[in-house]
Amino acid sequence: MCQLLSMNCNTPTDIVFSFEGFRRRGGLTDEHADGFGIAFFEGKGVRLFRDDKPSAHSPVADLVRQYQIKSTNVIAHIRKATQGQVNLANTHPFERELWGQYWVFAHNGNLENFHFSHAEYFNPVGETDSEQAFCFILEQLRQKYPTRPNNQAIFQEVKMLSEKIRAYGTFNFILSNGDWMMAHCSTNLHYIVRKAPFGEAHLIDEDMSIDFNKETTPNDQVAVIATLPLTLNETWTPFAKNTLLLFQNGQPIHL
Amino acid sequence: MCQLLSMNCNTPTDIVFSFEGFRRRGGLTDEHADGFGIAFFEGKGVRLFRDDKPSAHSPVADLVRQYQIKSTNVIAHIRKATQGQVNLANTHPFERELWGQYWVFAHNGNLENFHFSHAEYFNPVGETDSEQAFCFILEQLRQKYPTRPNNQAIFQEVKMLSEKIRAYGTFNFILSNGDWMMAHCSTNLHYIVRKAPFGEAHLIDEDMSIDFNKETTPNDQVAVIATLPLTLNETWTPFAKNTLLLFQNGQPIHL
Repeated sequence: MCQLLSMNCNTPTDIVFSFEGFRRRGGLTDEHADGFGIAFFEGKGVRLFRDDKPSAHSPVADLVRQYQIKSTNVIAHIRKATQGQVNLANTHPFERELWGQYWVFAHNGNLENFHFSHAEYFNPVGETDSEQAFCFILEQLRQKYPTRPNNQAIFQEVKMLSEKIRAYGTFNFILSNGDWMMAHCSTNLHYIVRKAPFGEAHLIDEDMSIDFNKETTPNDQVAVIATLPLTLNETWTPFAKNTLLLFQNGQPIHL
Repeated sequence: MCQLLSMNCNTPTDIVFSFEGFRRRGGLTDEHADGFGIAFFEGKGVRLFRDDKPSAHSPVADLVRQYQIKSTNVIAHIRKATQGQVNLANTHPFERELWGQYWVFAHNGNLENFHFSHAEYFNPVGETDSEQAFCFILEQLRQKYPTRPNNQAIFQEVKMLSEKIRAYGTFNFILSNGDWMMAHCSTNLHYIVRKAPFGEAHLIDEDMSIDFNKETTPNDQVAVIATLPLTLNETWTPFAKNTLLLFQNGQPIHL
């Protein structure tokens, strides 16, 4: 399987601390060594780094640490291949343009026999079940809404599509268009919202601590979503199974 | 304006030597300091690095040098902004998926008042004339051919579309789907084909030489396309104005 990490904030924030723990699971503290990827929204643009090398040892992952990119929406993924070869075309996150915005998607799980026939708008390039599912979601959204509807309509449609797709297997995913982030849990996903008063956090996968008081301002609000908790001394909230949540400005929004 | 650099080869080749000279024009030997980007096709996948910092000083560009990615199709671009702010969404190359393949595009020039109304399949995310032109080309291809036609049909269509678009201004561009590379010159573009017997080359922008004999095998064939020649002691062929060329396996193909 794979693991997911994502972040949604009300102010551009760097993900270095979380990513340092997460990347060690790609070949060092865990077995997810079949490539990794991380996408940063910056304004309307997306900076997308992918590598078919293990994240623990990738020079691309080293760059992410050095560069300290600040973003309000970040999606990262480390891969343990279940379907499709280990190559770049099969490496998450995937990206497409819909309604004049970039959309980014990463998936943890395995869908059995999930195929859809030739689509009008969005076709997969690689061989993964994950990219198929992403294209299917965008295709249905685009077929139903030729122009962009409001967030509530998008959320309801993605929720309905998630229900359909998870009938084929495990379907934990993160999806963002840069304005918000949707996270769907079919089996395993956790989140934490960090806001004032900030405390100290210690990574599980590396002997590394951070005092968020020193890194933040009192108005900052940051939601971090991950397959498994990344820190020892904070309380992560497990998603209820088979739920889709929308995060905006660093917190879950109830629609 | 901007400058273009691209490479099309019959065997995966690294572009480090050419890129080292080219990137210095982004803020060091020339004024193209408003960001840069480079896309490498790897199999069906694309590795796309972009930065809104000058290429001469960008840590992302440092990574490209260190990583020595081998690819058969590479497109690079350094930007001197004419339209649209300096930000990531306006940074070339641009990428979209068409007929289940990724397509990558970069443009040198400036199109005045080139706009097209809401498209069915491909819409720009940023504000540049360049991304508009790219989306227009893909839109027309997709409207005319719901499934992928042969290369000759694609070439003829892109040629016709280039004629239309260059009526709006300077339109030098590089386009690739990973199988081949098309290069269009409206004012300024040069290429060189390197094949056995290989010689030595010396960069214009940096005191750096390479002996291609030591880096290649006798069957290698590499076409390098650039706005302006990159080496001192080789003969670069200028494109005739208002021509589109198709490169495949490291050489221009006449269709």
